Amino acid sequence: MAAIYKRRVEFAETDMAGQVHFSVFFRYMEEAEHAIWRRAGMRIAAEGRTHQWPRISATCDFKSRLRVDDEFEVRTEMAKVSARTIQWAHTMMRGDTLVAQGSVTAVCVQLQADGTFVAVEIPADVLTRLRSALA
Amino acid sequence: MAAIYKRRVEFAETDMAGQVHFSVFFRYMEEAEHAIWRRAGMRIAAEGRTHQWPRISATCDFKSRLRVDDEFEVRTEMAKVSARTIQWAHTMMRGDTLVAQGSVTAVCVQLQADGTFVAVEIPADVLTRLRSALA
Amino acid sequence: MAAIYKRRVEFAETDMAGQVHFSVFFRYMEEAEHAIWRRAGMRIAAEGRTHQWPRISATCDFKSRLRVDDEFEVRTEMAKVSARTIQWAHTMMRGDTLVAQGSVTAVCVQLQADGTFVAVEIPADVLTRLRSALA
Amino acid sequence: MAAIYKRRVEFAETDMAGQVHFSVFFRYMEEAEHAIWRRAGMRIAAEGRTHQWPRISATCDFKSRLRVDDEFEVRTEMAKVSARTIQWAHTMMRGDTLVAQGSVTAVCVQLQADGTFVAVEIPADVLTRLRSALA
Repeated sequence: MAAIYKRRVEFAETDMAGQVHFSVFFRYMEEAEHAIWRRAGMRIAAEGRTHQWPRISATCDFKSRLRVDDEFEVRTEMAKVSARTIQWAHTMMRGDTLVAQGSVTAVCVQLQADGTFVAVEIPADVLTRLRSALA
Repeated sequence: MAAIYKRRVEFAETDMAGQVHFSVFFRYMEEAEHAIWRRAGMRIAAEGRTHQWPRISATCDFKSRLRVDDEFEVRTEMAKVSARTIQWAHTMMRGDTLVAQGSVTAVCVQLQADGTFVAVEIPADVLTRLRSALA
Repeated sequence: MAAIYKRRVEFAETDMAGQVHFSVFFRYMEEAEHAIWRRAGMRIAAEGRTHQWPRISATCDFKSRLRVDDEFEVRTEMAKVSARTIQWAHTMMRGDTLVAQGSVTAVCVQLQADGTFVAVEIPADVLTRLRSALA
Repeated sequence: MAAIYKRRVEFAETDMAGQVHFSVFFRYMEEAEHAIWRRAGMRIAAEGRTHQWPRISATCDFKSRLRVDDEFEVRTEMAKVSARTIQWAHTMMRGDTLVAQGSVTAVCVQLQADGTFVAVEIPADVLTRLRSALA
């Protein structure tokens, strides 16, 4: 029940220490999650959509360096689902080497008439489709 | 008739060649321009504003490296003004060393009812205020 | 025993949701930490330095949006110090509003003759100087 | 004699105006160029390499917006080759829509014993291989 997202490190993602800057790992994890949304036939960030999914928490443990041109993959699972939130767990591998383990929790919100956001329950069909994209 | 914007290079702006990535120079130039808007008492990107200023052209010649912790300044002038566009010219200096020379041209557009943008004339008072911020 | 780092949100740090992208918060926290190194009279990333400080773990809880032009501050403390690691705790505030709480753990490593890194004990004087920069 | 590089816009590449930030276009162009180096059996940024290729000039004209999830391609040609420099010309298309036209000029340099760089002639075989990767 994990989706695999494959990626290559680009030059602009490195820093002067010769490796991918740690903040970029969070972009990789987000890319992996958004690929799941697309595979589920949805677009998390399309304009005019009813719900938005701001991130409320993110963590990452960095185990091994990623360098330019490295090919790696992000294995993504749903670690925890509550009424309003999804916690995605990401494992990043370069071949057999563990690169990083992280998680990102997103909350389902709806735009109100006054421009603020309110957390709402995740629509059942959205969850069903996301789960099927992981199968 | 130039505004001075001072900045220090941050670690995350470097790449594996040990210097600021060339794409980041365009962010520095934009920061310098936006500082002029603020000095003029305006916010180029405030929500609910009537006009937006997408970039239609950008150039940069890179003369010297910028490294982590380097302090530098961006000297910004209005190079050319047409009815609908402003071309900003930026000179980046680290002390007496020329780091880069670039330009960014922005066009004044207005959001239409159908969601598209149309180029419109720059409001006279906006131009007056920007010019006074350069004095 | 906290250092304060002041910052303004730049346009390029926002995303299409109209707020600072969550990965950028980790860059803010790093900037705040590096400012402490400078205040302590050291440069964490200077070339030719004996030690490097790769990040081994990072977390952030996002409490409130940051938007373009927002002025905010990062209050940074040493949360935990072990023989080889420092965990920095960062609290981000926009006025009285809590924006985010995060932590970044860095490990002190030394470059070996064969190009690899080995974790080493943090030099006592480095720790002393960092602590005095927080006072 | 052009190479095609295909890409999708990622969420983190957008800004609050709902489109890809203009500085990111320069990263796309660099990715397209580096893909050519790989296709030519070389790695422009590998460690231990004799030559480096810093950018000395970059330009871009922005014709149409790129939005999240947009699929586009970069068509890259060698626009001009001198003894020490290569100017890459990039045309970005989203389907039949012209998105942007840009160029990036890189100079071939060699690291000297004192840590500085000196521009040197491009090795003939490097040029041959790059050209064959465009065929």
